[in-house]
Amino acid sequence: MLTVNAYAATAPTEPLTPTRIARRDLGPHDVLIEVKYCGICHTDIHWVRGDWGAKDYPVVPGHEMTGIVTEAGGEVTRHLVGDRVGVGCLANSCRTCANCRKGYEQYCLEGNVLTYGSVDRDGTLTQGGYSTHIVVTEDFVLKIPDGLALDVAAPLLCAGATTFSPLERWGAGPGKKVAVIGVGGLGHVAVKIAHAMGAEVTALSRGMGKKDDALRLGADHYHATADPDTFARLAGEFDLILNTVSAPLDVDAFLSTLAIDGTLAVVGATPEYSLHRANLVRNQRALSGSLIAGLPGTQRMLDFCAAHGVGAEIETIDAEQINEAYDRVLASDVRYRFVLDNATLV
Amino acid sequence: MLTVNAYAATAPTEPLTPTRIARRDLGPHDVLIEVKYCGICHTDIHWVRGDWGAKDYPVVPGHEMTGIVTEAGGEVTRHLVGDRVGVGCLANSCRTCANCRKGYEQYCLEGNVLTYGSVDRDGTLTQGGYSTHIVVTEDFVLKIPDGLALDVAAPLLCAGATTFSPLERWGAGPGKKVAVIGVGGLGHVAVKIAHAMGAEVTALSRGMGKKDDALRLGADHYHATADPDTFARLAGEFDLILNTVSAPLDVDAFLSTLAIDGTLAVVGATPEYSLHRANLVRNQRALSGSLIAGLPGTQRMLDFCAAHGVGAEIETIDAEQINEAYDRVLASDVRYRFVLDNATLV
Repeated sequence: MLTVNAYAATAPTEPLTPTRIARRDLGPHDVLIEVKYCGICHTDIHWVRGDWGAKDYPVVPGHEMTGIVTEAGGEVTRHLVGDRVGVGCLANSCRTCANCRKGYEQYCLEGNVLTYGSVDRDGTLTQGGYSTHIVVTEDFVLKIPDGLALDVAAPLLCAGATTFSPLERWGAGPGKKVAVIGVGGLGHVAVKIAHAMGAEVTALSRGMGKKDDALRLGADHYHATADPDTFARLAGEFDLILNTVSAPLDVDAFLSTLAIDGTLAVVGATPEYSLHRANLVRNQRALSGSLIAGLPGTQRMLDFCAAHGVGAEIETIDAEQINEAYDRVLASDVRYRFVLDNATLV
Repeated sequence: MLTVNAYAATAPTEPLTPTRIARRDLGPHDVLIEVKYCGICHTDIHWVRGDWGAKDYPVVPGHEMTGIVTEAGGEVTRHLVGDRVGVGCLANSCRTCANCRKGYEQYCLEGNVLTYGSVDRDGTLTQGGYSTHIVVTEDFVLKIPDGLALDVAAPLLCAGATTFSPLERWGAGPGKKVAVIGVGGLGHVAVKIAHAMGAEVTALSRGMGKKDDALRLGADHYHATADPDTFARLAGEFDLILNTVSAPLDVDAFLSTLAIDGTLAVVGATPEYSLHRANLVRNQRALSGSLIAGLPGTQRMLDFCAAHGVGAEIETIDAEQINEAYDRVLASDVRYRFVLDNATLV
């Protein structure tokens, strides 16, 4: 059993504090990873602050981590000591159900095991990436291709996978018009990926404040959704809209901007949706949703990002800045992802 | 100008009555069709009774007609006198917008021209298939393939096109599990088509009353949605669900029965939909809608139905039974489509 430095939440209303946690002894299929960087996802904040219901504490958040394999179990075949690797939102699943066998471990019919705050299949509570080391079964460890720096790769493990998945599924690419709602942690990566896929990309945000950034990230167009003329001007425009925000969504207004066979794909955390028939049947539109990505899809995303030079836009922080970073995420004061330098977990 | 026998509605609250209406002189691209049969669609009743807002009267309903070409304009190239043809919901469109050029005339950006109750591009009000003859521009006239009888083909022009379109789009076929909600005018054709496509078909209806019929029509399974156990039993089951009913829909319950990448496709007239995020993102599901079909899609449907021996289940009526048939449609007392014998319009 290895005891390692970490930052943990102890209660919904308390700041995160330094701690030490145990990592299990390596099983034959486990790898030990020295975590170099871990992205700070809005989900971490929802989770530790109890926005999504009561959770078990203490919990070490973090599901966007990259690092180096420092030890491998006796039967590990997929990773070698020294490999550059990543761990995303998933740490385990049943691996035998129909969904797991298709590579959609996030929809495991037996219940997936999230990287933190989940009961693993051995009965222990998983603890995430705000720690110096983690032990993960080899099948849930991704390869970080050469050429993708570990710091800008970290947020891809969640934000990249979550946005790449619907962009890939719904055919973003040359000749397709893709809109991204929200230029934030997810949205800024979505703009980069959609642009790299060859799509004509439109960034949609409440106001005009992120216009320059969005264009720099790869958007061809930018519109403020607070402008009442925007929706009329964009009627029937897009093949795909990716909603990355969690605020209530005017589904009808966005559906109206879809061309024939267009899809409004939601990956944000908006809890409820309502819409009128006319906006759905006109142009035979669809409203779709998805949740992160499975292991094969996450690896495809990493390989794609490496091949196209796509990384997250990050601000690197030390461990003692985590609580301040949480406040700044809630104030939308980050462009566009905080990444923890795990060497500062001392 | 030809004056022909018809049945028309004169007001939302009045029964339909015999009348005579004018059909325009043939333009160079028009064909004159002697209508042999016309299906009675629920839409006809909504329309004439004002359920969908104020309409112009008198109106001759009917958008599921089959017949014989008896005269062709001088520049007609697609149809010959004597050809077996059909006319569906669309009588015209701009033909030049992006949607029309893709063969989606139902989503014409200039506004489509419906077969009845619509202002045609020459400014006249269109009058539908409850009449002995109709004049239609050749591009909006479908071919009824040999082997498909004109009476059972008539309802396919709307009910067949409306259901074939999403079944084709979402890949109904061998290895796919398709559910059809509602075994009525649309649903009974959907069951037949999905079965002919090679899908494993489940019919879903409120009660058990239509079980024998559904199995006879080609369903492999049948479940009553009024049974509270049905949804739990069918969790994650279907690749595609086609909703053919117009009653309020428990979207969440039906979404929960979709497998990965599954779609709930609505073609019924339910005006509003609401759903919760969890049911959409789990298994990355989609809610989609569509409206009838364009001309190419309608022709593909007719060719498919002819090749697979698919026709509607009909009860043929004389013109004087139209009002009674309306009441019986509203009472769900038809298995499964009334078809007017247009020779009785005397």
